Amino acid sequence: MKLWQERRRLDRRVETFTVGDDPEIDLELVEFDCRASIAHTKMLRSIGVLNAAEARSLETELKNIIALHRKKKFKIGVEDEDCHTAIENHLTRRLGAAGKKIHAGRSRNDQVLTAIRLWSRLKLRQIGTRLQVLVKTLNLLSRRYRNAPVPGYTHSRKAMPYTVGKYFAAFADAFRDDLRFIESVSRLTDQNPLGSAAGYGTTLKPDRDLTTRLLDFRKTQRNELYAQNSRGKFESLILAALSQIMLDIQRLASDLILFSMEEFGFFRLADEFSTGSSIMPQKKNPDVFEIARANFAVVHSAYLQVIEILKGLTSGYHRDLQKTKEPLIRGVKNTLETLQIMTLALKGLRVDVARCRSACTDEIRSAARALDLVRRGVPFRDAYRAIARTVGVRS
Amino acid sequence: MKLWQERRRLDRRVETFTVGDDPEIDLELVEFDCRASIAHTKMLRSIGVLNAAEARSLETELKNIIALHRKKKFKIGVEDEDCHTAIENHLTRRLGAAGKKIHAGRSRNDQVLTAIRLWSRLKLRQIGTRLQVLVKTLNLLSRRYRNAPVPGYTHSRKAMPYTVGKYFAAFADAFRDDLRFIESVSRLTDQNPLGSAAGYGTTLKPDRDLTTRLLDFRKTQRNELYAQNSRGKFESLILAALSQIMLDIQRLASDLILFSMEEFGFFRLADEFSTGSSIMPQKKNPDVFEIARANFAVVHSAYLQVIEILKGLTSGYHRDLQKTKEPLIRGVKNTLETLQIMTLALKGLRVDVARCRSACTDEIRSAARALDLVRRGVPFRDAYRAIARTVGVRS
Amino acid sequence: MKLWQERRRLDRRVETFTVGDDPEIDLELVEFDCRASIAHTKMLRSIGVLNAAEARSLETELKNIIALHRKKKFKIGVEDEDCHTAIENHLTRRLGAAGKKIHAGRSRNDQVLTAIRLWSRLKLRQIGTRLQVLVKTLNLLSRRYRNAPVPGYTHSRKAMPYTVGKYFAAFADAFRDDLRFIESVSRLTDQNPLGSAAGYGTTLKPDRDLTTRLLDFRKTQRNELYAQNSRGKFESLILAALSQIMLDIQRLASDLILFSMEEFGFFRLADEFSTGSSIMPQKKNPDVFEIARANFAVVHSAYLQVIEILKGLTSGYHRDLQKTKEPLIRGVKNTLETLQIMTLALKGLRVDVARCRSACTDEIRSAARALDLVRRGVPFRDAYRAIARTVGVRS
Amino acid sequence: MKLWQERRRLDRRVETFTVGDDPEIDLELVEFDCRASIAHTKMLRSIGVLNAAEARSLETELKNIIALHRKKKFKIGVEDEDCHTAIENHLTRRLGAAGKKIHAGRSRNDQVLTAIRLWSRLKLRQIGTRLQVLVKTLNLLSRRYRNAPVPGYTHSRKAMPYTVGKYFAAFADAFRDDLRFIESVSRLTDQNPLGSAAGYGTTLKPDRDLTTRLLDFRKTQRNELYAQNSRGKFESLILAALSQIMLDIQRLASDLILFSMEEFGFFRLADEFSTGSSIMPQKKNPDVFEIARANFAVVHSAYLQVIEILKGLTSGYHRDLQKTKEPLIRGVKNTLETLQIMTLALKGLRVDVARCRSACTDEIRSAARALDLVRRGVPFRDAYRAIARTVGVRS
Repeated sequence: MKLWQERRRLDRRVETFTVGDDPEIDLELVEFDCRASIAHTKMLRSIGVLNAAEARSLETELKNIIALHRKKKFKIGVEDEDCHTAIENHLTRRLGAAGKKIHAGRSRNDQVLTAIRLWSRLKLRQIGTRLQVLVKTLNLLSRRYRNAPVPGYTHSRKAMPYTVGKYFAAFADAFRDDLRFIESVSRLTDQNPLGSAAGYGTTLKPDRDLTTRLLDFRKTQRNELYAQNSRGKFESLILAALSQIMLDIQRLASDLILFSMEEFGFFRLADEFSTGSSIMPQKKNPDVFEIARANFAVVHSAYLQVIEILKGLTSGYHRDLQKTKEPLIRGVKNTLETLQIMTLALKGLRVDVARCRSACTDEIRSAARALDLVRRGVPFRDAYRAIARTVGVRS
Repeated sequence: MKLWQERRRLDRRVETFTVGDDPEIDLELVEFDCRASIAHTKMLRSIGVLNAAEARSLETELKNIIALHRKKKFKIGVEDEDCHTAIENHLTRRLGAAGKKIHAGRSRNDQVLTAIRLWSRLKLRQIGTRLQVLVKTLNLLSRRYRNAPVPGYTHSRKAMPYTVGKYFAAFADAFRDDLRFIESVSRLTDQNPLGSAAGYGTTLKPDRDLTTRLLDFRKTQRNELYAQNSRGKFESLILAALSQIMLDIQRLASDLILFSMEEFGFFRLADEFSTGSSIMPQKKNPDVFEIARANFAVVHSAYLQVIEILKGLTSGYHRDLQKTKEPLIRGVKNTLETLQIMTLALKGLRVDVARCRSACTDEIRSAARALDLVRRGVPFRDAYRAIARTVGVRS
Repeated sequence: MKLWQERRRLDRRVETFTVGDDPEIDLELVEFDCRASIAHTKMLRSIGVLNAAEARSLETELKNIIALHRKKKFKIGVEDEDCHTAIENHLTRRLGAAGKKIHAGRSRNDQVLTAIRLWSRLKLRQIGTRLQVLVKTLNLLSRRYRNAPVPGYTHSRKAMPYTVGKYFAAFADAFRDDLRFIESVSRLTDQNPLGSAAGYGTTLKPDRDLTTRLLDFRKTQRNELYAQNSRGKFESLILAALSQIMLDIQRLASDLILFSMEEFGFFRLADEFSTGSSIMPQKKNPDVFEIARANFAVVHSAYLQVIEILKGLTSGYHRDLQKTKEPLIRGVKNTLETLQIMTLALKGLRVDVARCRSACTDEIRSAARALDLVRRGVPFRDAYRAIARTVGVRS
Repeated sequence: MKLWQERRRLDRRVETFTVGDDPEIDLELVEFDCRASIAHTKMLRSIGVLNAAEARSLETELKNIIALHRKKKFKIGVEDEDCHTAIENHLTRRLGAAGKKIHAGRSRNDQVLTAIRLWSRLKLRQIGTRLQVLVKTLNLLSRRYRNAPVPGYTHSRKAMPYTVGKYFAAFADAFRDDLRFIESVSRLTDQNPLGSAAGYGTTLKPDRDLTTRLLDFRKTQRNELYAQNSRGKFESLILAALSQIMLDIQRLASDLILFSMEEFGFFRLADEFSTGSSIMPQKKNPDVFEIARANFAVVHSAYLQVIEILKGLTSGYHRDLQKTKEPLIRGVKNTLETLQIMTLALKGLRVDVARCRSACTDEIRSAARALDLVRRGVPFRDAYRAIARTVGVRS
């Protein structure tokens, strides 16, 4: 039964429509809601709303739910609406009055906020770790091929000589910046909303700093309405940061798809990372990089979904915000998977140093040749023109 | 086993990553692929690739798969990659050589294209039907309240007198235009790609017009590369049209949320369509309309996912395109559900005619008063200024 | 002076902020507003609000404004706010009372709507014409190279033999579908909003069908609120259709950039269409195609601007809608320019038939070889495997 | 004349198409390019490419260009292509050989990058300052109305009592977080690309750390390819941060539009900030807030333009990136203007404390009443149900 339900019956189709995928999505959040509920329980004990025995039994049962959940034995039904209701219903079933007391001083609004914040914080840490592994892999490739010459391209045409090592290092630097960006977003969003209730606080005078300490938040999000208004906003910050990671990944993937074409032959993908065709027996396809490239759109459109939900909403909670949950989870999971697979695929990548070298044809040294003249005192623009006259311009 | 697999083993993590949700998503397509495969079978029979007995047994077994599927007994495993492979594997298991023959003259590329086209065509028809029901419901409301005065707003301020009837009629007209738009997109995308194979045809000289007739397509998509290049493009056309429907729905929902606030009181939502709060006992919330409003973002971000996947891709199939399937299905299903629930919610809507009328305060007749002067020969701009001097401007 | 101004002074900074670029943007619309005003004048005459002399003088002066405007002598100042005010102010200055009478029975809202509709209709026709020229150019190339073999690619790897002719034909077909799409959007949006005033009509009982005939609209947009609600909606329809054109253009541009790389050498860009580098004397760059590819984002983000403005707005006019004007104009102009330059660049394109042919290496006939076995009775899947065993799979 | 031009003539239409609005847009960058060029000059002097006299004359002339530019006397023609070329051409005209020497060791690619970075850094500072002023204004309002009760809304329905002071404080907190976000983006993008040339460095061994110090960058962007690959990426980071500001602004604007409706009457906009109607004499419209709300879409679609340009591009410079300049400038300018006007409009805002108070009807104290029971030992869920039974639920 829903928490607010008693007097009225909700039309079954309306119920299905408004609840949507929440029971399924919320499985991600069960553990985090239980942890937040434990902190809330301790706080309620500290201000005397719960007695010692009630607090103890609630804590024990909340830990029990976590254990059940890990064994995939904690269920959320459509009639429960979401994990928060399922948890309260479970507690009341098991503990009676104590269960009925836990919702004092909070609303589902701050409960959802808190669970999502805790979940996001953990996930951003995992993403940070995977970014670091990816950077390490790129650094390794960078060192291994630091002396391998390869043409640098501008306008999709050979431009100047570069090295394969520096090529990989360019991406190591990009992902390092992404890591820093993730960290700053993580810091910015690490604020405790618990106790802000429906966005306007309660008359219960909760000790919000206590839950901040217990849940290890960087700070209490003091203003209750801002706690609520940051729903969606913080999700969009996180997804904007993930979009940056995916933007670099799709570029790396695009490069690897291009330069592993037989017409270039700079890279080769390991056999166990290539797929075939249902009709052309000879094909060996770079599907891993193609899916990685497409995943940019998966993550970025999740960002856009959140942004477009927020546009036009006034302050305070609106049910619209429920639809920011799924894109957040989708974006995070997709980024995690893609980071892992890119690292793996890079490890399986072969560099054909000979083909890289032989692609460094003479004309890409024209700029260097102009600079040779510069070093002998010729003004650059004159040197440029002198060399230009000697080169057969290639299409 | 995958169709192209034999010699090489794909890394398990790569397999999971590239296959993604396809086995689950493809359940939507099983029936449509079977129907297309029946047409393909008849075509192969007509050009002599299959004998009569083979064709017959394939048809029977494909119908059998449809039947199994409807009983939810047809499974697609990760090792099958997608429904197309699962179907071919099933046919081969049951029929031996005949099963191994069915893929002649086609590729998974045109198979996927065809199944999605058939699926989309049906879904667009269903959407069309639901649009018509919604229009009918709005027309009913329009007639019922054709004489109920209500203020029209501009800049979120009362502007001029209007009627509740015309208010509903405005949305009937909008959805009628959306219907026409859906129909033109449906017509445009009703092209048969079957036989275009991987995007470059085959040497088999298939009778493509035969499958066009059998599957009741409006035309054969003659150029094989265009058949492939229209993957994603046609999905984006459909999703652009659905976005228009959702754009109107979110506006209607926004209006109903606003004007059912107690501060206006023009509309009231039936009890069985309202939800409550976990903390505030007095609340009665318009969640149906809030979710409907948010669903605009769900559908429109699906459109954007498709568009962003396409950006930068060259001609021909890329595995990236696999990721256009899920947003299409998501967008279509969401639109169907939202249309249904909006119709339902409109039927449960009460109009408070007295409050609508009493909101028509005197100052909103200022323009009419200026036009009274005009009818007596005063130039409009002078009349406007004369009235302006008499009205106390309201904030 | 603004039409509504007299009693109050607007803060100068607020004025600049709200008026924005309108005086500049509206230069596009002057002629169309004058034409609509002429129709409105005739209508006011027909219902007796204007006498014959007034109507005649207004028509003459409106034509005079068109003439002035074509000589770039009609100015819109910030204090005029927009072209509609500038025109009314001009008429009043020249004609006195007749000028003050023209605004009877309309509002700036329907004036803007009408001018934009007339402008869009013309522009969509021009875009249609340019699309036809582009299709013709592609058809010419298609016929010229119908026998030139070239590899077809899937997954950015050579897949099967195709022809240069069919390659160009694929784009001719795409743009033909775009043309049909443009036409259906043009038909859908060809509705006369004039006389809907601020969105709630007027008490003047205008003969709206008369202006429909005079301005050659397909139909009268009867419901006044829908006329207003379609502001932005119709702009987004148009921009969605332009995005489809640009989506195909960016794909064509991407192909031409790739296949004109020296590593492929299928195409060569004429010298007078290539640009150079400020530092590398040897460079010859395909900037035309790169800008064309980027222009997809210019047009598509214009669509998104309109959509994101609309999200969350309730029915009726909001000043937000003013910001849909600039992206519409930007999108239309950019599409027109890009279509023209693509046609030009295609005319200057050289196809290196020899390199196309020599790229058709033997392994891309593997599917054909499997089908040879099929014709001899081998089941396709067995034939595929037999050939697969004989091909050295290429990376 | 273009820097790379001599041998070939560019088709005039191609020239216009590729150069686009650059001459106009680049006026923003002239001063920043001159400053970067002065640093580059000093660096060239330090490594002996320029002698003391040349360096001195170049510096003087570059400062002269800045002075000319400030007097609006420095012109960029289409034939100059962009400001960088115009500046080099100017220097060569005035100084001969010294002018021809300045381009040694750099490319237009890193020149553009550097000018945009310097410009962005300054603009982000200005935005930071305006954010602080806005926060200060909100804090003032927050203190002034800290005891004024007003209903807090959830689901667009009255929910619980709150205060006007806390309402404004919620936005002060939001903008403070935006400020922190802007600062972290500013820090992240504060990297010196000068000397990375076309993305692959030069053989000149420039002292890049010298220009980093001279231009006060936080660090040298060591990897040349990353310098180039961060074009667009850094622009998108900045625009993502601006979108967050605008997201909060549009919410504030939406609130103020709603709550200043006469149906609520919580706020009143000063007369000098309201606009009127061309047809309805009584109207007083909140155009400032409507334009501010729409400006979210202006800024956010600029972000999307940049992102969609980047999607699918491989490493290294592509001319596509030129089209990231205009949206960056558009987004920055629009944000600056909107921040200023919002501060101004907030200063002109009147709060009707009496109407705020009288809107706090009794039923919004239901949750408090339930908590009263909780304090007397009733479990919250029982208390909730008890109160629910006593309240007449409002729609």
